[in-house]
Amino acid sequence: MDDLSEFVDQVPLLDHHCHFLIDGKVPNRDDRLAQVSTEADKDYPLADTKNRLAYHGFLALAKEFALDANNPLAAMNDPGYATYNHRIFGHFHFKELLIDTGFVPDDPILDLDQTAELVGIPVKAIYRLETHAEDFMLEHDNFAAWWQAFSNDVKQAKAHGFVGFKSIAAYRVGLHLEPVNVIEAAAGFDTWKHSGEKRLTSKPLIDYMLYHVAPLIIAQDMPLQFHVGYGDADTDMYLGNPLLMRDYLKAFTKKGLKVVLLHCYPYHREAGYLASVFPNLYFDISLLDNLGPSGASRVFNEAVELAPYTRILFASDASTYPEMYGLAARQFKQALVAHFSQLPFVDLAQKKAWINAICWQTSAKLYHQERELRV
Amino acid sequence: MDDLSEFVDQVPLLDHHCHFLIDGKVPNRDDRLAQVSTEADKDYPLADTKNRLAYHGFLALAKEFALDANNPLAAMNDPGYATYNHRIFGHFHFKELLIDTGFVPDDPILDLDQTAELVGIPVKAIYRLETHAEDFMLEHDNFAAWWQAFSNDVKQAKAHGFVGFKSIAAYRVGLHLEPVNVIEAAAGFDTWKHSGEKRLTSKPLIDYMLYHVAPLIIAQDMPLQFHVGYGDADTDMYLGNPLLMRDYLKAFTKKGLKVVLLHCYPYHREAGYLASVFPNLYFDISLLDNLGPSGASRVFNEAVELAPYTRILFASDASTYPEMYGLAARQFKQALVAHFSQLPFVDLAQKKAWINAICWQTSAKLYHQERELRV
Amino acid sequence: MDDLSEFVDQVPLLDHHCHFLIDGKVPNRDDRLAQVSTEADKDYPLADTKNRLAYHGFLALAKEFALDANNPLAAMNDPGYATYNHRIFGHFHFKELLIDTGFVPDDPILDLDQTAELVGIPVKAIYRLETHAEDFMLEHDNFAAWWQAFSNDVKQAKAHGFVGFKSIAAYRVGLHLEPVNVIEAAAGFDTWKHSGEKRLTSKPLIDYMLYHVAPLIIAQDMPLQFHVGYGDADTDMYLGNPLLMRDYLKAFTKKGLKVVLLHCYPYHREAGYLASVFPNLYFDISLLDNLGPSGASRVFNEAVELAPYTRILFASDASTYPEMYGLAARQFKQALVAHFSQLPFVDLAQKKAWINAICWQTSAKLYHQERELRV
Repeated sequence: MDDLSEFVDQVPLLDHHCHFLIDGKVPNRDDRLAQVSTEADKDYPLADTKNRLAYHGFLALAKEFALDANNPLAAMNDPGYATYNHRIFGHFHFKELLIDTGFVPDDPILDLDQTAELVGIPVKAIYRLETHAEDFMLEHDNFAAWWQAFSNDVKQAKAHGFVGFKSIAAYRVGLHLEPVNVIEAAAGFDTWKHSGEKRLTSKPLIDYMLYHVAPLIIAQDMPLQFHVGYGDADTDMYLGNPLLMRDYLKAFTKKGLKVVLLHCYPYHREAGYLASVFPNLYFDISLLDNLGPSGASRVFNEAVELAPYTRILFASDASTYPEMYGLAARQFKQALVAHFSQLPFVDLAQKKAWINAICWQTSAKLYHQERELRV
Repeated sequence: MDDLSEFVDQVPLLDHHCHFLIDGKVPNRDDRLAQVSTEADKDYPLADTKNRLAYHGFLALAKEFALDANNPLAAMNDPGYATYNHRIFGHFHFKELLIDTGFVPDDPILDLDQTAELVGIPVKAIYRLETHAEDFMLEHDNFAAWWQAFSNDVKQAKAHGFVGFKSIAAYRVGLHLEPVNVIEAAAGFDTWKHSGEKRLTSKPLIDYMLYHVAPLIIAQDMPLQFHVGYGDADTDMYLGNPLLMRDYLKAFTKKGLKVVLLHCYPYHREAGYLASVFPNLYFDISLLDNLGPSGASRVFNEAVELAPYTRILFASDASTYPEMYGLAARQFKQALVAHFSQLPFVDLAQKKAWINAICWQTSAKLYHQERELRV
Repeated sequence: MDDLSEFVDQVPLLDHHCHFLIDGKVPNRDDRLAQVSTEADKDYPLADTKNRLAYHGFLALAKEFALDANNPLAAMNDPGYATYNHRIFGHFHFKELLIDTGFVPDDPILDLDQTAELVGIPVKAIYRLETHAEDFMLEHDNFAAWWQAFSNDVKQAKAHGFVGFKSIAAYRVGLHLEPVNVIEAAAGFDTWKHSGEKRLTSKPLIDYMLYHVAPLIIAQDMPLQFHVGYGDADTDMYLGNPLLMRDYLKAFTKKGLKVVLLHCYPYHREAGYLASVFPNLYFDISLLDNLGPSGASRVFNEAVELAPYTRILFASDASTYPEMYGLAARQFKQALVAHFSQLPFVDLAQKKAWINAICWQTSAKLYHQERELRV
C-alpha cells in the first residue's frame, strides 16, 4: 500500500447525512439486508434486489467483520451486536454521524442515544422541515398560527440541539422552487388542513416555507440540505434536477445560506457545476456510493470535474444496518484513491489536504462540529 | 483467454429487438453499409458517416468473415450469402432474433421465413402498436369501430404468433404519457381520420391507446417495448427521457405489465434507476452497442450502476446487414468481459449466472422462448 | 513517446472559439490567474477557486514556461511578456485564434492586432449577434429601423472581416428557439427600447433575430456558433440543453446553415448525437478542457461516441492569460492520445487524418481559413 492509499485508509469520516440503525435482534437478516440494499418498495421482487451488486457488497462486509464466521447473518444480541458495529464503524474511521430523523426504518429502531452507543461514536440530529411542518399542522387551524408555531420552532432548532436542516421538497413537488405570496401559501394551507392528509404536498406552501425559513436558517448559521436526484419510486426524478433550483440558489446563497445537495445522482455533474459558480453550495454522492457500488469511482470522478474539492462531502445516507455505512465508506475511499493517485499538477500534501476536506473537515466547519470531531 | 472471456465468447445471444435483413444481391455494398451504420437521413453526407467508427467496425467484420478475402464488399448471391451470414451469426452465438416488423429497410427485404433461413436461426415477430393502429384507421370511420377492431387484434396477438409488443410513442408525441378520457381520444381520432395522413401523431389518441392496451397485454402475459432516447432525427430526444414515463409505470408495472425500454442512451442511467425501483421493468442499450462502438463498455457500466443484472438485456436493434448484428454482439460481449472481470464481491459462478441472464435467459423468460432456445 | 503521441504533440491547433488576452503588466497575477480559472463571479470565494484543479493546472504551466523560474507569477513587461506567450502558444502549436470580441476580460485588454502580436499568430474576429443588436438598438427608435440597420450589418459581416457569427441566446432566453411573427418581435423591441436597459432579453425578439439572420448567414457561407451548456452563474443551464434547438436545426441545417455548438458540457453526448443526425452541425468541448482538466479525456470520449470525427473541433474558450489557452491544448491533446491509442478497427493513417480534422482542418474549412493556415 502506497502513502496515499494508507492516508485514505485511516482518514476520519464525518457522515453528514444518514439515518437510524435498528436493533440487532431482528431475525431474517439476509432478506432485511437485501431490502436495505435498494430504494425499491416492499412489493419489488427480492430476487431482483439480490441480483444487484449492493446486496453482495453488504454480504461481503458481513462476512469480513462477522462475530461468528460460520454464521455471519445471524441475528445478534447485545453486547455482541455492539462489538460487530464497532468493528465496522471503527475499521473505516467513522467519527460522527449526522442523522436525518425524518426517515424511520422498519423494525425496532434505536433512538439517538442508543444509536450513538451502538456505533460507538457521537451522533447529532438534522431537522427535517416537512416533518415538523406536518406535526405543527395537526395543532393549528389556520396558516398564520401554523406559520408562527413552525417558524418559531425553526428559529430554536440550534438551541434545541439540531446541527442542520433538510428539505425533501424534491419528493413532494420537485426542485423548481419559486417565490410565492402569502395569500397563495395560506390557500395551500387551508386545502391541506381540510384534506385530512398529514402529508404536505402543496407546492405553494412548500415554496413559501423554503423561501421564508431561509433567513431563519442563515441567522443560525446552519446548513440546509436538499434531497436531489436518486431516491425511491416515490420521487419524480425528472423534477429532481438541481438546475431547477437556480432561482432559489441565486436568492439565498449570496446572502449566506449554506445549501447542501444530497445524493445528486444522476445529476452529480450538474451539482458540481452549481458548486463551482454559487458560493455556499455543497454536495455529496451519498446513496450511490453504497447502493451503486460499481459506479462510485466513476461518479466521484464526474462530480469533481468542475467542483472545488472543498465543496464535495462524504456521506452514506445509510440506515438500519452497519453494512450500509461500511460499504459507502469502502467504495468512497476507493474512489478517493483512484482519483487522487492519478491527479496531475498537485503534490501529495495538497492531495491529503483535499481528502481531509472531503472526508470530515468541510463538514466539521459547516455543521459547527469542530470541537466534537477531534482527529 | 481466461475463463470469464471464454465463457462470454461462447454465451448464446437472444436478440430481443432487431429488424429484417435484406437480400445479398444489392450492389454498392460499401455505401449501403455506411448508411446502415448511422441513424442519419439520406441527405446527411455519406463522407461524414464514413468518419464515424461504426462504419469501420462494420468493415472490419466484413473483412474478417469475407467469402472472398480480396473483395469483402462484393454483392453476394445465394447460397454464398447465407454462408456469410451463418459465419457471423454463428461466430457470436446468436440463437434467436425477435423482429420488430414495423421498420422496413430500403432495398428488397426478406420476410420472416426468408430471414430465418438466411441467418440460420429462428426469428419471431413483435407487434408494433402504431403500425397496426394506422392500418385499422384506414378501414374504420369512427373511433368506436376503430378501437374495437384494433383492440381485438391486440387481444389476439399471441394467438397470431407475436411474442411481444412495441410502441414508438417517443417518435410521435414523446414519453410523457397521461390518462386521457374517451371523448378526447375520439376527438383525436376524428382529427386524424380527416387529416388524410396515415401517420398517427395525436397525443390524446396515443396516450389513450397505451393506457388501454396495457390490460390486454397483461392478459396475454407479453412484454411491451418502448423506444426510448437515441433514434434518428425524426425523434425529439428531449421528450425521449424515460423519467417522463413515471405515471405510466406506476399505473401498470405493479399490475403486471412487463415494460422493456429500448436503446435508452443517453438516458441509460435513468433507465437503470427505473429498473431498480419498478417491478417488471427491463431495458437495453441497443443501437449504442453497434452505432457507438467506442462507448459500448462505458455505457454498459453506467447502465448497471443501479439496475439488477436480471433487468438489462442484450439487443442490437440491427437491420439490413449481418455486420450490424455482429458489431453489436462484439462490442456488447467485450463490455461484459470488461465489466465482470473487474466486479468485486461476487465469485465466477455468480458472474456467469448474470451474464447468462443478460444475454439470453431473462429475454427467454420474458418472451416465453424457453422451449425454442435450447442452449 | 510512440508515433501517435508524437503526432498529436506537434499537430497544429486552430482555436475557433476564444477571447482577448490582457496586458502583461497587471499585478497580482496569482489571484488574477485564479479568477480566470473559474466561471464564478467576483463574489465567489477565491479560496474555493484555488481548491479547483484548473487553477493548479494554470500554475503548473506558468512554472513550466516561466521567464524567471524563481518568480513565475511576476507581472511581466514587454518584450519579455511576448516571449512568455510565444513559448506557450508555440509549444502547443497554436496556429490561429478566432476571437469572440463580445466578451471583454477585466483589466487592460489588447485589441485584435495587439493580441496577434502578443501571441505571435494570426487572430480573426467572430461577430456576436446580441452585442451588435444592442448597439443598433441605441441608435434606432422602432423595430423596422433597427432591423434594417442590424440586418444590413449582418449582411456585411464577411466584407467587414468577420469569419463567423455567435449567439448567446442560451444566456438570455435558453435554447428553445421558436418561429415568431413580426408583430410579436416588434412588440418585444418596443418593450426593450422603453425599458432603459441595453441588454437584450426579449425571447420573441431573440427568436425572431435568429430565424431571420439564418438566411443572411447562409448567403455568406459563414458558421453560426451557439453558447450551449456550461457557463457562468448568469446562464440557466437547464435551458442550455441543445436538444431544445431541434426545431431550429431542422429548419436551417438542411438549407446549409453551419451551426457550431460551443462547450456543450454536460450535454456533450446530446451534442454528439445531434452532430450524428443533422448535416452541417459541429461542436466542441471548450471550457471543460481547461476549467475541468481532470475530466477532459472522459468528456471527449463521451462526446465522440456517436459524432463523426469530422464534426468535433478543438477550442479553448480561453481569455486573459496564455495559461488558459495552454491548459486547454494540453488536456485536449492528452485526451486525443488516450482516445485514439485505444481505438479499434482503424489504422494509424486514419487516426492521424481524424486528429488533423479535429485540431485544425475542419475549422479551417468551416471558417474559410485554409489560406491563412499553412501547416
